[in-house]
Amino acid sequence: MARPDGRTASDLRPVTFTRGWTEHAEGSVLVEFGRTRVLCNASVTEGVPRWRKGSGLGWVTAEYAMLPRATNTRSDRESVKGKIGGRTHEISRLIGRSIRAVVDEKALGENTIVLDCDVLQADGGTRTAAITGAYVALADAVTCLRGRKALHGEPLKDSVSAVSVGVIDGEARLDLCYDEDVKAGTDMNVVMTGSGLFVEVQGTAEGAPFSKAELDALLDLAAVGNLELAELQKAALA
Amino acid sequence: MARPDGRTASDLRPVTFTRGWTEHAEGSVLVEFGRTRVLCNASVTEGVPRWRKGSGLGWVTAEYAMLPRATNTRSDRESVKGKIGGRTHEISRLIGRSIRAVVDEKALGENTIVLDCDVLQADGGTRTAAITGAYVALADAVTCLRGRKALHGEPLKDSVSAVSVGVIDGEARLDLCYDEDVKAGTDMNVVMTGSGLFVEVQGTAEGAPFSKAELDALLDLAAVGNLELAELQKAALA
Amino acid sequence: MARPDGRTASDLRPVTFTRGWTEHAEGSVLVEFGRTRVLCNASVTEGVPRWRKGSGLGWVTAEYAMLPRATNTRSDRESVKGKIGGRTHEISRLIGRSIRAVVDEKALGENTIVLDCDVLQADGGTRTAAITGAYVALADAVTCLRGRKALHGEPLKDSVSAVSVGVIDGEARLDLCYDEDVKAGTDMNVVMTGSGLFVEVQGTAEGAPFSKAELDALLDLAAVGNLELAELQKAALA
Amino acid sequence: MARPDGRTASDLRPVTFTRGWTEHAEGSVLVEFGRTRVLCNASVTEGVPRWRKGSGLGWVTAEYAMLPRATNTRSDRESVKGKIGGRTHEISRLIGRSIRAVVDEKALGENTIVLDCDVLQADGGTRTAAITGAYVALADAVTCLRGRKALHGEPLKDSVSAVSVGVIDGEARLDLCYDEDVKAGTDMNVVMTGSGLFVEVQGTAEGAPFSKAELDALLDLAAVGNLELAELQKAALA
Amino acid sequence: MARPDGRTASDLRPVTFTRGWTEHAEGSVLVEFGRTRVLCNASVTEGVPRWRKGSGLGWVTAEYAMLPRATNTRSDRESVKGKIGGRTHEISRLIGRSIRAVVDEKALGENTIVLDCDVLQADGGTRTAAITGAYVALADAVTCLRGRKALHGEPLKDSVSAVSVGVIDGEARLDLCYDEDVKAGTDMNVVMTGSGLFVEVQGTAEGAPFSKAELDALLDLAAVGNLELAELQKAALA
Amino acid sequence: MARPDGRTASDLRPVTFTRGWTEHAEGSVLVEFGRTRVLCNASVTEGVPRWRKGSGLGWVTAEYAMLPRATNTRSDRESVKGKIGGRTHEISRLIGRSIRAVVDEKALGENTIVLDCDVLQADGGTRTAAITGAYVALADAVTCLRGRKALHGEPLKDSVSAVSVGVIDGEARLDLCYDEDVKAGTDMNVVMTGSGLFVEVQGTAEGAPFSKAELDALLDLAAVGNLELAELQKAALA
Repeated sequence: MARPDGRTASDLRPVTFTRGWTEHAEGSVLVEFGRTRVLCNASVTEGVPRWRKGSGLGWVTAEYAMLPRATNTRSDRESVKGKIGGRTHEISRLIGRSIRAVVDEKALGENTIVLDCDVLQADGGTRTAAITGAYVALADAVTCLRGRKALHGEPLKDSVSAVSVGVIDGEARLDLCYDEDVKAGTDMNVVMTGSGLFVEVQGTAEGAPFSKAELDALLDLAAVGNLELAELQKAALA
Repeated sequence: MARPDGRTASDLRPVTFTRGWTEHAEGSVLVEFGRTRVLCNASVTEGVPRWRKGSGLGWVTAEYAMLPRATNTRSDRESVKGKIGGRTHEISRLIGRSIRAVVDEKALGENTIVLDCDVLQADGGTRTAAITGAYVALADAVTCLRGRKALHGEPLKDSVSAVSVGVIDGEARLDLCYDEDVKAGTDMNVVMTGSGLFVEVQGTAEGAPFSKAELDALLDLAAVGNLELAELQKAALA
Repeated sequence: MARPDGRTASDLRPVTFTRGWTEHAEGSVLVEFGRTRVLCNASVTEGVPRWRKGSGLGWVTAEYAMLPRATNTRSDRESVKGKIGGRTHEISRLIGRSIRAVVDEKALGENTIVLDCDVLQADGGTRTAAITGAYVALADAVTCLRGRKALHGEPLKDSVSAVSVGVIDGEARLDLCYDEDVKAGTDMNVVMTGSGLFVEVQGTAEGAPFSKAELDALLDLAAVGNLELAELQKAALA
Repeated sequence: MARPDGRTASDLRPVTFTRGWTEHAEGSVLVEFGRTRVLCNASVTEGVPRWRKGSGLGWVTAEYAMLPRATNTRSDRESVKGKIGGRTHEISRLIGRSIRAVVDEKALGENTIVLDCDVLQADGGTRTAAITGAYVALADAVTCLRGRKALHGEPLKDSVSAVSVGVIDGEARLDLCYDEDVKAGTDMNVVMTGSGLFVEVQGTAEGAPFSKAELDALLDLAAVGNLELAELQKAALA
Repeated sequence: MARPDGRTASDLRPVTFTRGWTEHAEGSVLVEFGRTRVLCNASVTEGVPRWRKGSGLGWVTAEYAMLPRATNTRSDRESVKGKIGGRTHEISRLIGRSIRAVVDEKALGENTIVLDCDVLQADGGTRTAAITGAYVALADAVTCLRGRKALHGEPLKDSVSAVSVGVIDGEARLDLCYDEDVKAGTDMNVVMTGSGLFVEVQGTAEGAPFSKAELDALLDLAAVGNLELAELQKAALA
Repeated sequence: MARPDGRTASDLRPVTFTRGWTEHAEGSVLVEFGRTRVLCNASVTEGVPRWRKGSGLGWVTAEYAMLPRATNTRSDRESVKGKIGGRTHEISRLIGRSIRAVVDEKALGENTIVLDCDVLQADGGTRTAAITGAYVALADAVTCLRGRKALHGEPLKDSVSAVSVGVIDGEARLDLCYDEDVKAGTDMNVVMTGSGLFVEVQGTAEGAPFSKAELDALLDLAAVGNLELAELQKAALA
């Protein structure tokens, strides 16, 4: 039961990071996981939201969205519908939490970084690509703040990346593309630090419920993938 | 480092189910996990949403909300704000997925069951209580449909329950109350079937990222808790 | 033409007030008018809305809502629809005006009390039950403020209650349940103080327009009902 | 304590109806109660809303709004705010109910009449002027339907009008202008048929609660005013 | 191919300005271009929006809307739909830009003037009538500010007016009514100052694209019309 | 007074079209006008909106949006704000009208093409780039429909492009970049067909009003630019 693109079960898709993809943002990274392409822009502003003023702490948040025709059939714009859907909310929150897990808000000082992750083309794994690319954009934005001497120490405690894993026809596979995602009985997104610890584990039985053994196999595979992604991030930032 | 209410690390809070709590709904269960109280109403309607018509399949969905003063300080109503927040969206979706994992939509026939989970009083674990109570309300709604001879088989493939687990001061604890939830370094919600399989695993590093060993300890604890909840559900429905 | 529950035309349904029904709110009362059950939570906050700052006056307001399955068939949530309906607006405003009629805002000092009236189960008369229960919750919230020595005198000038009256088959009846409400030719909600004065009179010809004689009969009946409710409120607060 | 415009306590302001004020609507009436000016347009469409199709019954509804500078200080547009306020909702519903009280929906056949009441200039009593003018616009729209032979009988069972009454400095007064409305201790809107029966009675204690005697005095005054308005409507339609 | 109302191709419809049409607004003008009637109210408030505070500059803005039955068939209210349509946005912005082109914001001082243009009856050319009438209302509002000694010089640098032109059956025509507007192959709105310069030129090929020669013919016609409108404005303000 | 990027007054910026930029859309073109980059995706669906069903005509529409950090400072998302701004509405409508001017809706048959124009990076002229790129995407979508044998003739009557022109320091310039746009006294967007006719002319006096001579100079310059753009479009589609 070969994978659609010929990979082995534990292969990532080709992953690339293009830094400086747009010119305005302090950090701007086009991340590609195979045919999935997400533009991750990090915007720096001085100051923090009102509820955090005077705390000495910085603030990092994220917003995720898809272009209407990022997918195979066109979706209506959430701006036109006048409200944000549950899936969008959920992924924006996940990206924000994941990134904040490796940020020292004290070292950031009272600065805000917004990470905009816009999916230009989707082929499965958009949220994991977004987290992985957002970290690289964040690193560039932090470099920019360092250049402005606006930091109170090193705000990046570690790197962070994410990858999806799933069980298809009884086989645990890494980094599912869309066709695999649709077929997966169990689907899991795993966010990890560069040092190999877990930040977020979200597993869902799309088909039949899963056992501890399956869960362990998936987590092991995700650890392999995230380790590789951390290396790729490091190389991209070198 | 005793727990606020004197429980051991692997104790659930007192859990009760009051069936028939309101009179109109086909299934109406007040579930209590200690001081957390959630009203789970299951509403049955003939027919399914337009996109599912003619499929022969039923539909089960869920909506979660909190009364403004379910919490220690009053929250503004989402109806007044004119939009649903990300957290509400996320939990509604989680409950829906969890419940659908044990439903045979073919056996349900073209009927719709909406599970409304309204938190009357919150003390941590509202989403896990909601899932656990919603299953009981669902079971009553299914009984009602069976009475109407509207089913095509047994729609409940298994039972489903959920419990939170977390690490506090290095100790893995079951079924966190609000004060513990706030302090937890890692926080996890685990949804399982009555037969002990996983439906959904959502773990988040609120403080420091966590290791595989910590994750395993938490999953073991959650399995114990869900086993007990499954027994309590069975007893409540007997 | 007996009433569905065997009452005489001038009987109230069994009315109960359960104080302290939830633990967080400064005043929390479950009021029951027969099968109609409304949770009235009074939330106290220091300070007043911006437009009232520095006036030395307090502020009391109310919000009314129904759980989706409080009624016989499920209603969509107003939060999901993204806007509040006319009926909800109307009742929220009525409760607020009614309660403010007995409050001395100067004695309240610059404190705000929000009265959340959430209908858990509806069987007619939800707005009158809400007003009647909200007064009891308000009284508890005022007691709480008194304990904090945050008052500038006695903010409660009187008690306030409300009851519905209607004409069914030519007979004036007190405190209509849902089945009666639907059949009533004329329907009236009457809000009165404990001392027997009128705060609000809202009468509507649902069927044929009504005469002054019918109006008088209804107002007399409402006065009897409100007198009894005032006694029950006093007893509940004793 | 003379009235601002020299009227006696039981005088209406000068009331005029200008029929055919705009050219497009089937009924178009500019109604003036002194300086209060409301444009009432009745729009006829064939057919009824979906929920009423096939019933053989017609449908009449109303919408009320104010131009931003109808009042002394400019109000923000509800279209710009993106939602309709409680007051607007409440008045729209009141107008609709009042008008429907004199309409025989069977005789109307499956036709819809929408009454748009837009306040061009406000000086108190806009809702009562709106109801009184809307009836005249409705009558013109019905004439138009009769011309098209689209009716199944006479849809107007009676005429309907409305007037405000209030207690100022202990005196019951008819048809309050804005300056009086602000000072009124009790404020009441009374909707009546041409034959002198009550359709809607809405009284509110803005200041001190009121007695049955005060209520009776106000209702008597309103009956006088509505009788006069019914005559003026009849004359305008002659 | 005569025009529906017998005008020659270069005739304006009868244009009238009724100043002081409502009593509350600092400037209130009912402008009529034939059967098109727009109420233009200018509201003055001290101070400017937050983003302009301390600049020493005033602010002028405009909002355009149509009553539901200003047109031949009823349109739903934008307040009820909960959002403003593209056409409304576009015209509001056009009026604001046009008016600001002749205002010296420094001379206005930190005062705000809002121009509300509400179409009471539409027969084509509502946006051009709105601009033309709004200028007259603005002039009255400026006079009011002058009376309050709130100005720092003369804020009106010139007058401004607007007119539509279009090609129908190969003929360039001035000031199209609705029936002509619908048939026009090319449709243009031209905003000009009293001194004959262009402020805004908006031309659209509704049917076939147009040549430079056609464009020139239309612009010439518009210049004639605007010259005449400027005279009429001057006369109205005399 | 040299241009920021060294161009002469009548030079376009470097213009490129990258077809097939994303894989899902039937037409997908990244258009670049210098540093301005807009992704134009054409989505084909069978059938037309309800109001056009059975007419035998196709439908083409457009939506325009900017990514939050397409610009120098981040803008809030319209989806998060819950409503679309006036500028977005205006440009979406302009693109739609411009494209429809060259489409034969009869030849298109009952098919719908939606043109999504998303600005990835903005440096002035985003709306003109969007129109120019959307035409190329449209042509690819039409080719796709032709391949499906879904057309009733040739739907493209001509090509269409757009360019901005403006007066800066008294000089008419073609294709303004952002820094020039900000300084321009008069700013004009001109949409033309490949055969040199006008589709839309929108000129605005940002500073002083302009004369017919200035207008003519700008239109001449725009004609030169659009001629060149038409050639580039042809080459890109060859």
